Amino acid sequence: MRFCPYAHRVHLVLDAKKIPYHAIYINLRQKPEWFPLVSSSTKVPALELVKEPGKPVLIESLIICDYLDERFPEVPLYPKDLLKKAQEKILIERFEQFISDFYNLVLHKNPEQLVDIDHYAGLVAYEEELKQRGTKFFGGDNPGMLDYMMWPWCERFAAMKFSFDEKFELSRERFPTLIKWRDLMLQDRAVKCFYLDGQTHAKYMDSRRSGNADYNMLYNEAKRVKLG
Amino acid sequence: MRFCPYAHRVHLVLDAKKIPYHAIYINLRQKPEWFPLVSSSTKVPALELVKEPGKPVLIESLIICDYLDERFPEVPLYPKDLLKKAQEKILIERFEQFISDFYNLVLHKNPEQLVDIDHYAGLVAYEEELKQRGTKFFGGDNPGMLDYMMWPWCERFAAMKFSFDEKFELSRERFPTLIKWRDLMLQDRAVKCFYLDGQTHAKYMDSRRSGNADYNMLYNEAKRVKLG
Repeated sequence: MRFCPYAHRVHLVLDAKKIPYHAIYINLRQKPEWFPLVSSSTKVPALELVKEPGKPVLIESLIICDYLDERFPEVPLYPKDLLKKAQEKILIERFEQFISDFYNLVLHKNPEQLVDIDHYAGLVAYEEELKQRGTKFFGGDNPGMLDYMMWPWCERFAAMKFSFDEKFELSRERFPTLIKWRDLMLQDRAVKCFYLDGQTHAKYMDSRRSGNADYNMLYNEAKRVKLG
Repeated sequence: MRFCPYAHRVHLVLDAKKIPYHAIYINLRQKPEWFPLVSSSTKVPALELVKEPGKPVLIESLIICDYLDERFPEVPLYPKDLLKKAQEKILIERFEQFISDFYNLVLHKNPEQLVDIDHYAGLVAYEEELKQRGTKFFGGDNPGMLDYMMWPWCERFAAMKFSFDEKFELSRERFPTLIKWRDLMLQDRAVKCFYLDGQTHAKYMDSRRSGNADYNMLYNEAKRVKLG
Protein backbone atom coordinates (compact mmCIF):
# COMPACT_ATOMS: atom_id res chain seq x y z
CA MET A 1 0.00 0.00 0.00
CA ARG A 2 1.11 3.50 -0.86
CA PHE A 3 0.47 5.11 2.56
CA CYS A 4 2.78 3.37 5.04
CA PRO A 5 4.86 6.15 6.68
CA TYR A 6 7.59 3.68 7.62
CA ALA A 7 7.92 2.65 3.97
CA HIS A 8 7.81 6.37 3.12
CA ARG A 9 11.03 6.77 5.12
CA VAL A 10 12.80 4.26 2.89
CA HIS A 11 11.49 5.91 -0.30
CA LEU A 12 12.87 9.25 0.92
CA VAL A 13 16.35 7.83 1.52
CA LEU A 14 16.36 5.95 -1.80
CA ASP A 15 15.28 9.11 -3.64
CA ALA A 16 17.67 11.38 -1.71
CA LYS A 17 20.53 9.12 -2.77
CA LYS A 18 19.10 8.59 -6.27
CA ILE A 19 19.27 4.81 -5.87
CA PRO A 20 17.17 3.13 -8.57
CA TYR A 21 14.41 0.91 -7.18
CA HIS A 22 11.15 -0.71 -8.05
CA ALA A 23 8.23 -0.34 -5.63
CA ILE A 24 5.51 -2.93 -5.10
CA TYR A 25 2.59 -1.97 -2.90
CA ILE A 26 0.68 -4.72 -1.16
CA ASN A 27 -2.65 -5.00 0.61
CA LEU A 28 -1.70 -5.45 4.27
CA ARG A 29 -4.91 -7.26 5.16
CA GLN A 30 -4.72 -9.66 2.24
CA LYS A 31 -1.02 -10.08 1.69
CA PRO A 32 -0.05 -11.65 -1.62
CA GLU A 33 1.04 -15.28 -1.41
CA TRP A 34 4.57 -14.47 -2.55
CA PHE A 35 5.14 -11.95 0.24
CA PRO A 36 6.07 -14.34 3.08
CA LEU A 37 8.34 -16.20 0.67
CA VAL A 38 10.27 -13.04 -0.12
CA SER A 39 10.20 -11.15 3.17
CA SER A 40 11.74 -12.43 6.39
CA SER A 41 8.84 -10.88 8.27
CA THR A 42 5.20 -9.99 7.80
CA LYS A 43 6.00 -6.30 7.95
CA VAL A 44 6.52 -3.49 5.48
CA PRO A 45 8.79 -1.94 4.43
CA ALA A 46 10.79 -4.88 3.15
CA LEU A 47 13.68 -4.12 0.82
CA GLU A 48 14.78 -6.92 -1.49
CA LEU A 49 18.36 -6.45 -2.63
CA VAL A 50 17.97 -7.98 -6.07
CA LYS A 51 21.62 -7.59 -7.06
CA GLU A 52 23.01 -9.37 -3.99
CA PRO A 53 23.49 -13.17 -4.05
CA GLY A 54 20.37 -14.88 -2.73
CA LYS A 55 18.38 -11.63 -3.02
CA PRO A 56 18.31 -10.98 0.72
CA VAL A 57 15.48 -8.89 2.18
CA LEU A 58 15.99 -6.22 4.82
CA ILE A 59 13.23 -5.10 7.19
CA GLU A 60 12.74 -2.34 9.80
CA SER A 61 12.72 1.18 8.36
CA LEU A 62 15.61 2.49 10.48
CA ILE A 63 17.84 -0.51 9.80
CA ILE A 64 17.13 -0.28 6.06
CA CYS A 65 17.82 3.47 6.00
CA ASP A 66 21.05 3.11 8.00
CA TYR A 67 22.15 0.33 5.65
CA LEU A 68 21.44 2.48 2.58
CA ASP A 69 23.34 5.36 4.15
CA GLU A 70 26.43 3.23 4.72
CA ARG A 71 26.17 1.37 1.43
CA PHE A 72 25.68 4.51 -0.68
CA PRO A 73 27.80 7.07 1.11
CA GLU A 74 27.88 9.61 -1.73
CA VAL A 75 25.01 11.62 -0.22
CA PRO A 76 25.73 11.18 3.51
CA LEU A 77 22.66 11.68 5.70
CA TYR A 78 24.25 11.58 9.16
CA PRO A 79 26.74 14.06 10.64
CA LYS A 80 30.33 12.86 10.23
CA ASP A 81 31.00 13.36 13.93
CA LEU A 82 30.14 10.06 15.67
CA LEU A 83 28.75 11.72 18.79
CA LYS A 84 26.48 13.98 16.73
CA LYS A 85 25.41 10.94 14.74
CA ALA A 86 24.42 9.13 17.95
CA GLN A 87 22.55 12.23 19.15
CA GLU A 88 20.69 12.33 15.82
CA LYS A 89 19.70 8.68 16.30
CA ILE A 90 18.37 9.48 19.78
CA LEU A 91 16.17 12.22 18.29
CA ILE A 92 14.92 9.75 15.64
CA GLU A 93 14.17 7.18 18.35
CA ARG A 94 12.37 9.72 20.52
CA PHE A 95 10.16 10.72 17.61
CA GLU A 96 8.46 7.33 18.01
CA GLN A 97 6.74 8.74 21.11
CA PHE A 98 5.25 11.54 19.03
CA ILE A 99 4.22 9.03 16.33
CA SER A 100 2.35 7.05 18.93
CA ASP A 101 0.55 10.21 20.19
CA PHE A 102 -0.23 11.16 16.60
CA TYR A 103 -1.93 7.84 15.90
CA ASN A 104 -3.90 8.07 19.13
CA LEU A 105 -5.40 11.21 17.66
CA VAL A 106 -5.67 10.25 14.02
CA LEU A 107 -7.22 6.83 14.59
CA HIS A 108 -9.55 7.89 17.38
CA LYS A 109 -13.19 7.29 16.51
CA ASN A 110 -14.17 10.64 17.96
CA PRO A 111 -11.21 13.03 17.98
CA GLU A 112 -13.46 15.84 19.29
CA GLN A 113 -13.24 14.08 22.65
CA LEU A 114 -9.48 14.61 22.61
CA VAL A 115 -9.54 18.36 22.13
CA ASP A 116 -8.03 19.09 25.56
CA ILE A 117 -5.04 16.79 25.05
CA ASP A 118 -1.82 18.34 23.79
CA HIS A 119 -1.13 16.04 20.86
CA TYR A 120 1.80 18.07 19.64
CA ALA A 121 3.69 18.20 22.96
CA GLY A 122 6.19 15.72 21.53
CA LEU A 123 7.17 18.21 18.83
CA VAL A 124 8.27 20.97 21.24
CA ALA A 125 11.74 19.45 21.61
CA TYR A 126 12.15 19.40 17.80
CA GLU A 127 10.99 23.03 17.45
CA GLU A 128 13.56 24.01 20.08
CA GLU A 129 16.28 21.85 18.60
CA LEU A 130 15.95 23.28 15.10
CA LYS A 131 15.68 26.83 16.45
CA GLN A 132 18.91 26.31 18.40
CA ARG A 133 20.69 24.81 15.41
CA GLY A 134 19.70 27.85 13.35
CA THR A 135 19.98 25.81 10.14
CA LYS A 136 17.41 25.30 7.38
CA PHE A 137 17.14 21.59 8.07
CA PHE A 138 18.16 19.37 10.99
CA GLY A 139 20.79 18.09 8.58
CA GLY A 140 22.12 21.62 7.90
CA ASP A 141 21.80 23.10 4.41
CA ASN A 142 20.19 19.91 3.17
CA PRO A 143 17.85 17.41 4.79
CA GLY A 144 19.62 14.68 6.77
CA MET A 145 18.47 11.39 8.25
CA LEU A 146 16.49 13.04 11.08
CA ASP A 147 14.62 15.26 8.60
CA TYR A 148 13.65 12.30 6.44
CA MET A 149 12.77 10.03 9.37
CA MET A 150 10.37 12.68 10.75
CA TRP A 151 8.93 13.77 7.44
CA PRO A 152 6.32 11.07 6.68
CA TRP A 153 4.27 12.09 9.72
CA CYS A 154 4.87 15.81 9.18
CA GLU A 155 3.61 15.55 5.60
CA ARG A 156 0.43 14.05 7.05
CA PHE A 157 -0.25 17.10 9.28
CA ALA A 158 -1.75 18.69 6.17
CA ALA A 159 -4.50 16.07 6.29
CA MET A 160 -5.83 17.15 9.68
CA LYS A 161 -8.07 19.95 8.49
CA PHE A 162 -9.71 17.64 5.95
CA SER A 163 -10.15 14.72 8.33
CA PHE A 164 -11.03 16.69 11.43
CA ASP A 165 -10.85 20.39 11.97
CA GLU A 166 -8.35 23.21 11.58
CA LYS A 167 -7.71 23.28 15.31
CA PHE A 168 -5.91 19.97 14.99
CA GLU A 169 -3.43 21.45 12.54
CA LEU A 170 0.14 22.33 13.49
CA SER A 171 0.04 25.78 15.11
CA ARG A 172 1.95 28.58 13.38
CA GLU A 173 2.35 30.45 16.67
CA ARG A 174 3.70 27.50 18.60
CA PHE A 175 5.86 25.90 15.92
CA PRO A 176 7.14 28.74 13.70
CA THR A 177 10.49 27.03 13.09
CA LEU A 178 8.95 23.68 12.17
CA ILE A 179 6.44 25.38 9.86
CA LYS A 180 9.31 27.10 8.03
CA TRP A 181 11.12 23.75 7.94
CA ARG A 182 8.03 22.07 6.49
CA ASP A 183 7.83 24.64 3.69
CA LEU A 184 11.49 24.05 2.87
CA MET A 185 11.09 20.28 3.00
CA LEU A 186 8.27 20.54 0.46
CA GLN A 187 10.80 21.93 -2.00
CA ASP A 188 13.25 19.06 -1.51
CA ARG A 189 13.62 16.77 -4.49
CA ALA A 190 13.33 13.50 -2.53
CA VAL A 191 10.27 14.78 -0.66
CA LYS A 192 8.64 15.79 -3.97
CA CYS A 193 9.29 12.33 -5.47
CA PHE A 194 6.92 10.66 -3.01
CA TYR A 195 4.70 13.56 -1.97
CA LEU A 196 0.94 13.30 -1.53
CA ASP A 197 -1.29 16.25 -0.63
CA GLY A 198 -3.28 16.56 2.58
CA GLN A 199 -6.58 15.72 0.94
CA THR A 200 -5.25 12.42 -0.40
CA HIS A 201 -3.70 11.50 2.96
CA ALA A 202 -6.99 12.44 4.65
CA LYS A 203 -8.92 10.16 2.33
CA TYR A 204 -6.72 7.20 3.23
CA MET A 205 -6.70 8.04 6.96
CA ASP A 206 -10.49 8.28 6.95
CA SER A 207 -10.71 4.83 5.38
CA ARG A 208 -8.35 3.49 8.05
CA ARG A 209 -10.25 5.12 10.90
CA SER A 210 -13.47 3.62 9.61
CA GLY A 211 -11.91 0.19 10.16
CA ASN A 212 -11.71 -0.58 6.46
CA ALA A 213 -8.33 0.75 5.34
CA ASP A 214 -8.25 1.29 1.57
CA TYR A 215 -4.88 -0.31 0.91
CA ASN A 216 -5.52 -0.25 -2.83
CA MET A 217 -5.90 3.53 -3.03
CA LEU A 218 -3.52 4.86 -5.70
CA TYR A 219 -2.79 1.31 -6.84
CA ASN A 220 -3.06 2.33 -10.49
CA GLU A 221 -0.98 5.45 -9.97
CA ALA A 222 1.66 3.26 -8.33
CA LYS A 223 1.91 1.21 -11.49
CA ARG A 224 2.82 4.26 -13.54
CA VAL A 225 6.45 4.67 -14.51
CA LYS A 226 8.19 6.72 -11.85
CA LEU A 227 9.37 10.06 -13.19
CA GLY A 228 11.16 11.45 -10.07
CA MET B 1 20.32 -0.43 40.00
CA ARG B 2 22.54 -3.33 39.14
CA PHE B 3 19.95 -5.50 37.38
CA CYS B 4 18.80 -3.57 34.29
CA PRO B 5 19.42 -5.88 31.30
CA TYR B 6 19.53 -2.92 28.92
CA ALA B 7 22.29 -1.34 31.01
CA HIS B 8 23.91 -4.79 31.10
CA ARG B 9 24.25 -4.56 27.29
CA VAL B 10 26.30 -1.38 27.60
CA HIS B 11 28.52 -2.88 30.32
CA LEU B 12 29.24 -5.85 28.04
CA VAL B 13 30.31 -3.62 25.14
CA LEU B 14 32.41 -1.37 27.39
CA ASP B 15 34.12 -4.42 28.90
CA ALA B 16 34.55 -6.20 25.56
CA LYS B 17 36.36 -3.13 24.24
CA LYS B 18 38.17 -2.52 27.55
CA ILE B 19 36.91 1.05 27.70
CA PRO B 20 37.42 2.47 31.21
CA TYR B 21 34.19 3.63 32.85
CA HIS B 22 32.63 4.41 36.17
CA ALA B 23 29.20 2.92 36.96
CA ILE B 24 26.58 4.59 39.13
CA TYR B 25 23.48 2.56 39.98
CA ILE B 26 20.30 4.44 40.81
CA ASN B 27 16.99 3.53 42.40
CA LEU B 28 14.52 3.70 39.51
CA ARG B 29 11.54 4.43 41.76
CA GLN B 30 13.30 7.16 43.69
CA LYS B 31 15.66 8.66 41.17
CA PRO B 32 18.38 10.88 42.61
CA GLU B 33 17.82 14.61 42.14
CA TRP B 34 20.90 14.94 39.93
CA PHE B 35 19.71 12.32 37.44
CA PRO B 36 17.34 14.46 35.32
CA LEU B 37 19.99 17.18 35.25
CA VAL B 38 22.53 14.80 33.78
CA SER B 39 20.42 12.54 31.58
CA SER B 40 18.40 13.72 28.62
CA SER B 41 15.74 11.17 29.55
CA THR B 42 14.33 9.42 32.58
CA LYS B 43 15.66 6.11 31.35
CA VAL B 44 18.66 3.92 32.04
CA PRO B 45 21.16 3.21 30.68
CA ALA B 46 22.48 6.73 30.29
CA LEU B 47 26.13 7.11 29.31
CA GLU B 48 27.77 10.39 30.21
CA LEU B 49 30.79 11.09 28.02
CA VAL B 50 32.86 12.91 30.60
CA LYS B 51 35.76 13.67 28.29
CA GLU B 52 33.63 15.32 25.58
CA PRO B 53 32.90 19.06 25.77
CA GLY B 54 29.68 19.68 27.68
CA LYS B 55 29.69 16.08 28.96
CA PRO B 56 26.87 14.91 26.67
CA VAL B 57 24.75 11.95 27.72
CA LEU B 58 23.67 9.20 25.37
CA ILE B 59 20.59 7.04 25.95
CA GLU B 60 19.01 3.92 24.40
CA SER B 61 21.09 0.77 24.78
CA LEU B 62 21.40 0.01 21.06
CA ILE B 63 22.35 3.58 20.13
CA ILE B 64 24.95 3.67 22.91
CA CYS B 65 26.41 0.30 21.88
CA ASP B 66 26.53 1.25 18.19
CA TYR B 67 28.23 4.52 19.13
CA LEU B 68 30.82 2.71 21.23
CA ASP B 69 31.44 0.26 18.41
CA GLU B 70 32.13 3.06 15.91
CA ARG B 71 34.07 5.22 18.37
CA PHE B 72 36.30 2.38 19.58
CA PRO B 73 36.76 0.27 16.47
CA GLU B 74 39.74 -1.73 17.77
CA VAL B 75 37.50 -4.63 18.84
CA PRO B 76 34.85 -4.54 16.10
CA LEU B 77 31.57 -6.15 17.12
CA TYR B 78 29.71 -6.10 13.79
CA PRO B 79 30.60 -7.99 10.60
CA LYS B 80 32.58 -5.80 8.19
CA ASP B 81 30.18 -6.61 5.37
CA LEU B 82 27.44 -3.95 5.46
CA LEU B 83 24.67 -6.33 4.45
CA LYS B 84 25.65 -8.83 7.16
CA LYS B 85 25.80 -5.95 9.63
CA ALA B 86 22.23 -4.94 8.71
CA GLN B 87 21.09 -8.56 9.03
CA GLU B 88 22.70 -8.70 12.49
CA LYS B 89 20.78 -5.57 13.47
CA ILE B 90 17.53 -7.17 12.32
CA LEU B 91 18.23 -10.17 14.56
CA ILE B 92 18.94 -7.81 17.48
CA GLU B 93 15.69 -5.92 16.81
CA ARG B 94 13.67 -9.14 16.56
CA PHE B 95 15.02 -10.31 19.90
CA GLU B 96 12.83 -7.59 21.47
CA GLN B 97 9.84 -9.83 20.77
CA PHE B 98 11.41 -12.61 22.79
CA ILE B 99 12.28 -10.13 25.57
CA SER B 100 8.65 -9.12 25.76
CA ASP B 101 7.53 -12.79 25.98
CA PHE B 102 10.17 -13.41 28.63
CA TYR B 103 8.87 -10.61 30.85
CA ASN B 104 5.31 -11.82 30.43
CA LEU B 105 6.50 -15.03 32.05
CA VAL B 106 8.95 -13.67 34.59
CA LEU B 107 6.70 -10.92 35.93
CA HIS B 108 3.51 -12.96 35.95
CA LYS B 109 2.01 -13.27 39.40
CA ASN B 110 1.24 -16.91 38.85
CA PRO B 111 3.51 -18.38 36.17
CA GLU B 112 2.02 -21.84 36.74
CA GLN B 113 -1.00 -20.57 34.81
CA LEU B 114 1.27 -20.04 31.81
CA VAL B 115 2.64 -23.56 31.63
CA ASP B 116 0.99 -24.32 28.28
CA ILE B 117 2.41 -21.26 26.55
CA ASP B 118 5.61 -21.68 24.57
CA HIS B 119 7.66 -18.87 26.09
CA TYR B 120 10.80 -19.85 24.25
CA ALA B 121 9.27 -19.93 20.76
CA GLY B 122 11.09 -16.69 19.97
CA LEU B 123 14.45 -18.42 20.48
CA VAL B 124 13.92 -21.08 17.80
CA ALA B 125 15.14 -18.75 15.04
CA TYR B 126 18.34 -18.06 17.03
CA GLU B 127 18.96 -21.77 17.65
CA GLU B 128 18.59 -22.38 13.90
CA GLU B 129 20.67 -19.36 12.95
CA LEU B 130 23.63 -20.33 15.12
CA LYS B 131 23.38 -23.97 14.03
CA GLN B 132 23.51 -22.86 10.40
CA ARG B 133 26.44 -20.54 11.00
CA GLY B 134 28.33 -23.41 12.61
CA THR B 135 30.45 -20.94 14.60
CA LYS B 136 31.06 -20.77 18.34
CA PHE B 137 29.35 -17.42 18.65
CA PHE B 138 27.02 -15.43 16.40
CA GLY B 139 30.03 -13.16 15.97
CA GLY B 140 32.26 -16.07 14.85
CA ASP B 141 35.24 -17.08 17.00
CA ASN B 142 34.44 -14.31 19.45
CA PRO B 143 31.18 -12.80 20.66
CA GLY B 144 29.86 -9.98 18.48
CA MET B 145 27.17 -7.38 18.92
CA LEU B 146 24.30 -9.87 18.55
CA ASP B 147 25.81 -12.16 21.20
CA TYR B 148 26.17 -9.30 23.66
CA MET B 149 22.76 -7.78 22.91
CA MET B 150 21.06 -11.15 23.60
CA TRP B 151 23.17 -12.13 26.57
CA PRO B 152 21.57 -10.16 29.46
CA TRP B 153 18.34 -12.13 29.12
CA CYS B 154 20.10 -15.42 28.45
CA GLU B 155 22.14 -15.02 31.64
CA ARG B 156 18.82 -14.67 33.45
CA PHE B 157 17.54 -18.06 32.23
CA ALA B 158 19.57 -19.56 35.07
CA ALA B 159 17.23 -17.81 37.52
CA MET B 160 14.13 -19.68 36.38
CA LYS B 161 14.60 -22.80 38.47
CA PHE B 162 15.05 -20.69 41.61
CA SER B 163 12.14 -18.36 40.92
CA PHE B 164 9.76 -20.92 39.46
CA ASP B 165 10.44 -24.45 38.50
CA GLU B 166 12.90 -26.40 36.37
CA LYS B 167 10.34 -26.81 33.61
CA PHE B 168 10.68 -23.10 32.84
CA GLU B 169 14.40 -23.52 32.15
CA LEU B 170 15.86 -23.51 28.65
CA SER B 171 15.48 -27.05 27.28
CA ARG B 172 18.66 -28.96 26.44
CA GLU B 173 16.82 -31.09 23.91
CA ARG B 174 15.24 -28.19 22.09
CA PHE B 175 18.11 -25.70 22.21
CA PRO B 176 21.35 -27.74 22.14
CA THR B 177 23.22 -25.12 20.10
CA LEU B 178 22.16 -22.22 22.33
CA ILE B 179 23.07 -24.20 25.47
CA LYS B 180 26.56 -24.81 24.08
CA TRP B 181 26.71 -21.11 23.19
CA ARG B 182 25.69 -20.16 26.73
CA ASP B 183 28.49 -22.26 28.21
CA LEU B 184 31.00 -20.59 25.91
CA MET B 185 29.64 -17.12 26.66
CA LEU B 186 30.14 -17.78 30.37
CA GLN B 187 33.86 -18.08 29.68
CA ASP B 188 34.04 -14.75 27.85
CA ARG B 189 35.97 -12.05 29.68
CA ALA B 190 33.37 -9.29 29.17
CA VAL B 191 30.55 -11.60 30.28
CA LYS B 192 32.53 -12.54 33.40
CA CYS B 193 33.11 -8.87 34.28
CA PHE B 194 29.40 -8.27 34.91
CA TYR B 195 28.15 -11.79 35.62
CA LEU B 196 25.65 -12.63 38.34
CA ASP B 197 24.51 -16.16 39.13
CA GLY B 198 20.98 -17.46 38.73
CA GLN B 199 20.20 -17.32 42.42
CA THR B 200 21.09 -13.63 42.64
CA HIS B 201 19.07 -12.80 39.53
CA ALA B 202 16.17 -14.82 40.96
CA LYS B 203 16.30 -12.86 44.22
CA TYR B 204 16.00 -9.55 42.35
CA MET B 205 13.32 -10.87 39.95
CA ASP B 206 11.29 -12.13 42.91
CA SER B 207 11.45 -8.69 44.51
CA ARG B 208 10.29 -7.14 41.22
CA ARG B 209 7.45 -9.60 40.77
CA SER B 210 6.26 -8.88 44.28
CA GLY B 211 5.75 -5.25 43.20
CA ASN B 212 8.57 -3.95 45.40
CA ALA B 213 11.69 -4.15 43.23
CA ASP B 214 14.84 -4.11 45.36
CA TYR B 215 16.80 -1.58 43.33
CA ASN B 216 19.39 -1.30 46.08
CA MET B 217 20.37 -4.97 45.96
CA LEU B 218 24.16 -5.22 45.53
CA TYR B 219 24.50 -1.49 46.13
CA ASN B 220 27.46 -2.05 48.40
CA GLU B 221 29.06 -4.50 46.03
CA ALA B 222 28.64 -1.91 43.28
CA LYS B 223 30.69 0.51 45.28
CA ARG B 224 33.64 -1.87 45.36
CA VAL B 225 36.51 -1.13 43.05
CA LYS B 226 35.95 -2.95 39.79
CA LEU B 227 38.54 -5.66 39.20
CA GLY B 228 37.47 -6.91 35.73
